[in-house]
Amino acid sequence: MKNVIHAKCVRCGKTYEATPNLTTCACGGILDVVYDYDYVKKTLTKEKLAARPRTMWRCRELLPVEETTPDTPLRVGWSPLYEAQRLGAQLGLGRLWIKDDGQNPTASLKDRASAMAVAKAQEAGARIIACSSTGNAASSLAGNAAAAGLRSFIFVPERAPKGKVAQLMTFGANVISVQGNYEETFALSKKAIDKWGWYNRNAAINPYLSEGKKTVSLEIAEQLNWQMPDYLAISVGDGCTIAGVWKGLKDLYAIGFIDSLPRLISVQAEGCHPINRAIAENQPWQPMEENTLADSIAVGVPRNADKALMAIRESNGIVVNVTDEEIMAAQKLLGTTCGVFGEPAGVTGTAGVKKLCAQGVLGAQDTVVSVVTGNGLKDVANAIRFCGEPMKLPNDLDLLIEAFERRGLKTE
Amino acid sequence: MKNVIHAKCVRCGKTYEATPNLTTCACGGILDVVYDYDYVKKTLTKEKLAARPRTMWRCRELLPVEETTPDTPLRVGWSPLYEAQRLGAQLGLGRLWIKDDGQNPTASLKDRASAMAVAKAQEAGARIIACSSTGNAASSLAGNAAAAGLRSFIFVPERAPKGKVAQLMTFGANVISVQGNYEETFALSKKAIDKWGWYNRNAAINPYLSEGKKTVSLEIAEQLNWQMPDYLAISVGDGCTIAGVWKGLKDLYAIGFIDSLPRLISVQAEGCHPINRAIAENQPWQPMEENTLADSIAVGVPRNADKALMAIRESNGIVVNVTDEEIMAAQKLLGTTCGVFGEPAGVTGTAGVKKLCAQGVLGAQDTVVSVVTGNGLKDVANAIRFCGEPMKLPNDLDLLIEAFERRGLKTE
Repeated sequence: MKNVIHAKCVRCGKTYEATPNLTTCACGGILDVVYDYDYVKKTLTKEKLAARPRTMWRCRELLPVEETTPDTPLRVGWSPLYEAQRLGAQLGLGRLWIKDDGQNPTASLKDRASAMAVAKAQEAGARIIACSSTGNAASSLAGNAAAAGLRSFIFVPERAPKGKVAQLMTFGANVISVQGNYEETFALSKKAIDKWGWYNRNAAINPYLSEGKKTVSLEIAEQLNWQMPDYLAISVGDGCTIAGVWKGLKDLYAIGFIDSLPRLISVQAEGCHPINRAIAENQPWQPMEENTLADSIAVGVPRNADKALMAIRESNGIVVNVTDEEIMAAQKLLGTTCGVFGEPAGVTGTAGVKKLCAQGVLGAQDTVVSVVTGNGLKDVANAIRFCGEPMKLPNDLDLLIEAFERRGLKTE
Repeated sequence: MKNVIHAKCVRCGKTYEATPNLTTCACGGILDVVYDYDYVKKTLTKEKLAARPRTMWRCRELLPVEETTPDTPLRVGWSPLYEAQRLGAQLGLGRLWIKDDGQNPTASLKDRASAMAVAKAQEAGARIIACSSTGNAASSLAGNAAAAGLRSFIFVPERAPKGKVAQLMTFGANVISVQGNYEETFALSKKAIDKWGWYNRNAAINPYLSEGKKTVSLEIAEQLNWQMPDYLAISVGDGCTIAGVWKGLKDLYAIGFIDSLPRLISVQAEGCHPINRAIAENQPWQPMEENTLADSIAVGVPRNADKALMAIRESNGIVVNVTDEEIMAAQKLLGTTCGVFGEPAGVTGTAGVKKLCAQGVLGAQDTVVSVVTGNGLKDVANAIRFCGEPMKLPNDLDLLIEAFERRGLKTE
């Protein structure tokens, strides 16, 4: 990879050759891929970029893959960025954009990481790829691996929702439901990966995943014609996504494609916010309980905390926590004003923006991009619980008229 | 609309000015929009088209909207067309492509029709839009209307899957769940639309919807660089989609963008195939029971039968019916070989292709495009029933090894 110098531990600074099988540093720290920005500057122009296929692979010069590695088969990335005029006005913001990353092949931002994992697995000559996960990482890995003709082994805790398991089974993953909690699930996946030498897609172990995720901010910048907003809001669980978002922005700044960096808004659930607590109290992070319905960000022991905390601090970021009720209200708000249906964790970023507007932290002078990280169809049960039931009627116009009147529904 | 001459009844030939509020002919026949192909030929080139935004609105010259009507807000269309090499080889086909139209804002092909309805409602000055639907038309209308700032009233049969209802409620639609089948649902929606004068998005009433749907074949042609396949397979319920698909192909042929027309493959469920029965028996269509789990095509009284039958016959098409088991097997096959997760009705077209291959009707000499019309996340319950259970194990490597051996699972 001519564009990559090496991988460097974010904790001790030790460097490693950027081989496809990289995991963590000997010290236990997470590795970060370091690019040769001079080389990138020489080879990449905005004009070149504009002509390329609209997928996450369009900006190859800033991705840690060999030139000969093929794009993965599913169309990941280049999700729509909508200017949300009515919602922005309702919140009192200067301008607001919604990046709908639920519009990805398996319906979440995680497709970006999983497609990267598939590409690196192929570079490594692996034919099997594995991870432990309860949700979007698993389904995106299963889908992207299937499309590329790789096999997958996926370890889920027994409490994993049936719907997610169904998705995995449909993609033909070998699914192992582990009788125990997530820690035991992770442990068994580690033993199996060590024994059989499968390619490892466990987040926070594999340093390439956040490089895949960073493509979301490369796209936002390009879709905004390189004029950056004041803030970029995103939900935070494990920390890998917000770290990737920041990495992408810094990359673009380093090569001169953008001339300002937005401040990050890190939004977590009230019931589980170890990263935001660490920022707010300016202390090392401590584990927390996982009390939120936003399952994709219910991470009490965030394995990418180091990178996430660094990103929030470097960007002079803001942290905000939201209740489950605020999350579900944001889901409905995005649905009714933007036609965007996000899963609970997916809309948590927007819930945070709404709260900061109500608190007067954000206002008419501010421009904000809010990323929706997953599709609401992933968790229909919670949507139904909060948005209510339809009216139920027989085929009878008089009863319909009566029902409308009873509800005070305007018909024009 | 300089590109549109008029709308013409497919039954009696009577013509109507193409106003936004058009419904059906006085004789009860469905109207068809007639274009001035000479005008289109003069104004549209393949080069012009190539440079435009990748949405369903890119080919305005072939769409029945005023030049001043804005594109609708959600990014509808330009869904991925994947060449399915492994699946094609497995089925013994020359070449096979999968058009994944589940990759649309509300996760189905119906977004194309609903976005068109929203555009026409805006031209008509309407502020409320209504329809009856088994699900996808409804959720797509709710989402596209919400994004455009229109209100919606939506009538669904009580059997509509939960995922679709959750979408409707989240998008803020006024939802009426009708105790009865689709026919009764349609009847109540008609009474309500007549009473309150809402803009009518019912597929067989509004002649513009199939014009929206036809964008799927405009895209397929462009994505294949105007080299058409021998066959185009699609699931059929009401008949509006296959009619739209055919219209798009004929449009492109008329303006000289393609020089051959694929034969249509109309796939219906064994439990509900009134259109295919009419073709097979060369008789007028008759109502049928609605006995299939593929809810989106469980239409016993297809209101677009006239247009659909004409399309299948004109194309020298093939009809094939598949059982629910064949449908669910196709769902898994698409998942495992392509990483595409379609809803039951969405994969019915592919189930038909598979069956025709097994019967020797299709083979190594044939090229086929199969459209997946909706996302599997819309109906997780059926996927769960059919895709089997994961292995269940404690955190114990020896037991894992044993389980793999018992199942003959290869680990490399």
